[in-house]
Amino acid sequence: MGVTVQTSEINHSEVSSNNSAPENRKNGIGESIADAVINLDHGDPTMFEAYWEKMRERSAVTLLGSQSLSYFSDPKNLCWFLEPKLEQEIKRLHTIVGNVAIEEGQYYIVVGTGSSQLIQAALYALSPPDAAATVVCAAPYYSAYPEVTDLVRSRRFEWGGDARSFERDDEPFIELVTTPNNPDGVIREAVVNRPHGSVVYDLAYYWPHFTPITAPANHHLMLFTFSKCTGHAGSRIGWALVKDKEVAKKMIKFMEVSTIGVSKDSQLRAAKILGTVSDSCSTGADIENFFVFSRNILKERWNRLREVVKAADLFTLLKYPTQYCRFAKDMTDTVPAFAWIATKGEEDCAEVLKKHKILGRGGTKFGVGKQFARISLVSKDEEFNLLLQRLSIIQGTDDLNYE
Amino acid sequence: MGVTVQTSEINHSEVSSNNSAPENRKNGIGESIADAVINLDHGDPTMFEAYWEKMRERSAVTLLGSQSLSYFSDPKNLCWFLEPKLEQEIKRLHTIVGNVAIEEGQYYIVVGTGSSQLIQAALYALSPPDAAATVVCAAPYYSAYPEVTDLVRSRRFEWGGDARSFERDDEPFIELVTTPNNPDGVIREAVVNRPHGSVVYDLAYYWPHFTPITAPANHHLMLFTFSKCTGHAGSRIGWALVKDKEVAKKMIKFMEVSTIGVSKDSQLRAAKILGTVSDSCSTGADIENFFVFSRNILKERWNRLREVVKAADLFTLLKYPTQYCRFAKDMTDTVPAFAWIATKGEEDCAEVLKKHKILGRGGTKFGVGKQFARISLVSKDEEFNLLLQRLSIIQGTDDLNYE
Repeated sequence: MGVTVQTSEINHSEVSSNNSAPENRKNGIGESIADAVINLDHGDPTMFEAYWEKMRERSAVTLLGSQSLSYFSDPKNLCWFLEPKLEQEIKRLHTIVGNVAIEEGQYYIVVGTGSSQLIQAALYALSPPDAAATVVCAAPYYSAYPEVTDLVRSRRFEWGGDARSFERDDEPFIELVTTPNNPDGVIREAVVNRPHGSVVYDLAYYWPHFTPITAPANHHLMLFTFSKCTGHAGSRIGWALVKDKEVAKKMIKFMEVSTIGVSKDSQLRAAKILGTVSDSCSTGADIENFFVFSRNILKERWNRLREVVKAADLFTLLKYPTQYCRFAKDMTDTVPAFAWIATKGEEDCAEVLKKHKILGRGGTKFGVGKQFARISLVSKDEEFNLLLQRLSIIQGTDDLNYE
Repeated sequence: MGVTVQTSEINHSEVSSNNSAPENRKNGIGESIADAVINLDHGDPTMFEAYWEKMRERSAVTLLGSQSLSYFSDPKNLCWFLEPKLEQEIKRLHTIVGNVAIEEGQYYIVVGTGSSQLIQAALYALSPPDAAATVVCAAPYYSAYPEVTDLVRSRRFEWGGDARSFERDDEPFIELVTTPNNPDGVIREAVVNRPHGSVVYDLAYYWPHFTPITAPANHHLMLFTFSKCTGHAGSRIGWALVKDKEVAKKMIKFMEVSTIGVSKDSQLRAAKILGTVSDSCSTGADIENFFVFSRNILKERWNRLREVVKAADLFTLLKYPTQYCRFAKDMTDTVPAFAWIATKGEEDCAEVLKKHKILGRGGTKFGVGKQFARISLVSKDEEFNLLLQRLSIIQGTDDLNYE
């Protein structure tokens, strides 16, 4: 895989689009959907609305005007801004799903304003006081990592690019391991394995609708996000599971200084929604299993996508192994939230897509070549259907100029 | 006023306590309230619960499971993560109160996870790309500013201490002006007035329950926070009013990278609560005017506090001018959310208070001498009553060792 690290003024975060004008971020009002650019650059998880529409009342929360005025959620908790109900539902869901070994007392839970803020808190907590830590991740890496790391040009930590190129034994480093990986859905392990380093596991996608749960994860520092678990991106809730008390304390300190804690309203809502997901997983539940429902949609989308890609013979998609999932109690395969597609030659994949009014995110933003692009598969049905329709009409040499 | 800048390992943020153990942050369960340490170190605005208890249903919001999944609130808005309802209620309240000249189109509104995050966004937006800006504020300054500024030891900006000591004409600076000021309630203006600088106005307390609204503010960059306006600190909502489009864009970019926007749940709740406050201000409203209600409590607390302090003759309190308030349409005085008290000698004020089980925040954290301390006056009634009771028994030489 060709590795081309390329700086860019274009915004790298999960929500940024290839077009800087906000009006291009979504289909304009009054614009015919057939002519509209479909924006699959970001991973806006609106696919999940279909499930929550059925549960709209059951998973509703009412916040009275008189509640949650104080900064404090639980002064007895190390993480004093963590709502006890949320803590309880996070533990319950991990136990039901089996994706984390969350036995009592093993982890401190630190809640964050999405996992983006928790990444910064982790970098703050893990960087040495006297020298800058180099932050690395194996390419292709999540496009937000470089930007989050270097946002204010910290002297504590700085972005170092592809983890496979990090070869210094005497320097502090922090390796970010996203597994399953964003953008490509691949299961990963740490690659640096040198002294003076720490590893942060970003497990945003380690849920059974996306991938088989093969074993309970038990790393020292793991990040999860509400956005990718249930689809509620607008609530901005993430959580870290941290083994080391001192690291947890530093992360809490970061949250305290940077935002004085995390929205209680969203925490209470997240508790209710995660609780509904747990309820849906119990035997004899009177509601559809959330993960089964979501997996079925993704599975069907992947099948249809593979058919179209195969017929066009212009792009490639990765194949994923089938493994035993402890949650499904069956063999399942990975059906990632993103398609990581590549042109068969060296063409600029995002450019090819753009000509057909599909906005994806180009490979260079993930630290690899422009022949790759990431496309969100968790949009609404109408956008996904348009994607397939447009991919299916991309034909040979007009668009892909082999040289 | 003696100025003693002193570094400290003790946490400086609004919620931190003088005791690092979380169990000391609030009165312990089962502990007799009469023996408990009362924590008035932070400005937890629980005083306002009394009002919201009356409005608990009227100002309630219900969030359905199916709403607000997307990252986006309004893709047509420069601040794409700002909920249109919140924007509308912010404008409405400023118009009713008259504290900002918010005519249509003059300001961009940027929402933040409390105003702490917006301070960082402002420093990011106003610092030059090629040199570090020195961040200053006239002492006594809000104790969180140094810590927020230097959180990750940015190369873009760094804390420079008391603005009155900044005398370099050739260096970029950012002056923070808090008015009315935290900790001392004084009305302020910028003091540096040199080239290469920007000014950020923190107007958290420029609301009619705290101070007379003498004129609509119309600075280039102003910060407000939901916490101090209505008391809903747990929601973590703040907003910036920004004249310059490029500055607003950079602040939005900061919010995008650091937390991918701001909790929609809290924004929708804030819209409802601010709307209730506006409703309460209209002539012929069937509910009690929020600002009048809150001001009356604070006014009574200040009267009682001044009596106790006068009787003990050991401390001093500042006096504030009476001015015409455009909102009250009457002469009013300043009744700050904090008492900024000083011992008459050079004793450590926070230490004296601590002996009597009152936790305040010492002057050194605000960049001045230890003879000062800040005490929150926006706690619940029972805590305020205990404060007065304890202050009234502090007697002469046992505690204040004049030398």
